[in-house]
Amino acid sequence: MKILAISGSLRAASHNTALLRAAARLAPAEIDIELYRELGKLPLFNPDIEVCDSPLIANLRAKLIDADAVLIASPEYAHGITGTMKNALDWMVSTEAFVNKPVALMNASPRAVHADAALRETLAVMSALVIKEASITLPLLGSGLSESGIVNHPEISSAIRSSIIAIQTAISHLDGRR
Amino acid sequence: MKILAISGSLRAASHNTALLRAAARLAPAEIDIELYRELGKLPLFNPDIEVCDSPLIANLRAKLIDADAVLIASPEYAHGITGTMKNALDWMVSTEAFVNKPVALMNASPRAVHADAALRETLAVMSALVIKEASITLPLLGSGLSESGIVNHPEISSAIRSSIIAIQTAISHLDGRR
Repeated sequence: MKILAISGSLRAASHNTALLRAAARLAPAEIDIELYRELGKLPLFNPDIEVCDSPLIANLRAKLIDADAVLIASPEYAHGITGTMKNALDWMVSTEAFVNKPVALMNASPRAVHADAALRETLAVMSALVIKEASITLPLLGSGLSESGIVNHPEISSAIRSSIIAIQTAISHLDGRR
Repeated sequence: MKILAISGSLRAASHNTALLRAAARLAPAEIDIELYRELGKLPLFNPDIEVCDSPLIANLRAKLIDADAVLIASPEYAHGITGTMKNALDWMVSTEAFVNKPVALMNASPRAVHADAALRETLAVMSALVIKEASITLPLLGSGLSESGIVNHPEISSAIRSSIIAIQTAISHLDGRR
């Protein structure tokens, strides 16, 4: 099983990116979690440009289509989704990349309610399947936990492992229906 | 009086950009509405980069600080604010650019309720003063109206003129309090 992980922050010391890196280390051996690294290189969305005319955008679409599920961790900026995260989604609206795609949302801050709601609304409109059991909120903001700190934290690593198992279960159920 | 107008769409035939161009033509002679043209050239927001280290971002901040008010027209993509518009706001969060700045929101579609609400929420957190009387919703999406069509439409041009007068009034009241 392949999961594409997308962090909505470009900050080098991002909690959200650390969370996704930790998830990749905590995943069972049969699940490959790949961190998408090009979000900050995408051009700003222009509806006049075709997805296939931008190699980076076409590559994002291909990676999403190829993935069995998508894992998103994205911070909240000024009570909203990050422009960087929304920009990537805007490019995918005209494609089938998220249609019926299982998506898990990992929220690194219990206070980030606006961005989480905005992400869910947009993903629902794009026909993604947000997996309720796999979408978790963790108290990472202000915790000072690094990637290794997350991996070694008993409760937090356990919650992440449970989320990944829930993604795996959701993929299996969907595959059984196809 | 100087108003900086920002369109949240990069589409060449954008209704929102046409609306702002029409507003510039409909404004009284004493009000200069400048259309900001660099939104699509801004880098994606990275909190590790200082505003002053990017000439384009520093220039946006300077233009906003210099303006007496800001006029925003931004479409809704997938039930959310456009990534391009939010990206520009994300850069300004750490600055004083929007603090106590009068802002008018022109919404080109009565159905675009999610993006309008997200813009208001983010601008409020950034301490901008959204001018209620100047923020209007117009049925432009699907109307086929060009910039000239908007200027020559009796009801729509009248609503835009009233919005600009409301901005002028709000600026005068604020100046009187300073």
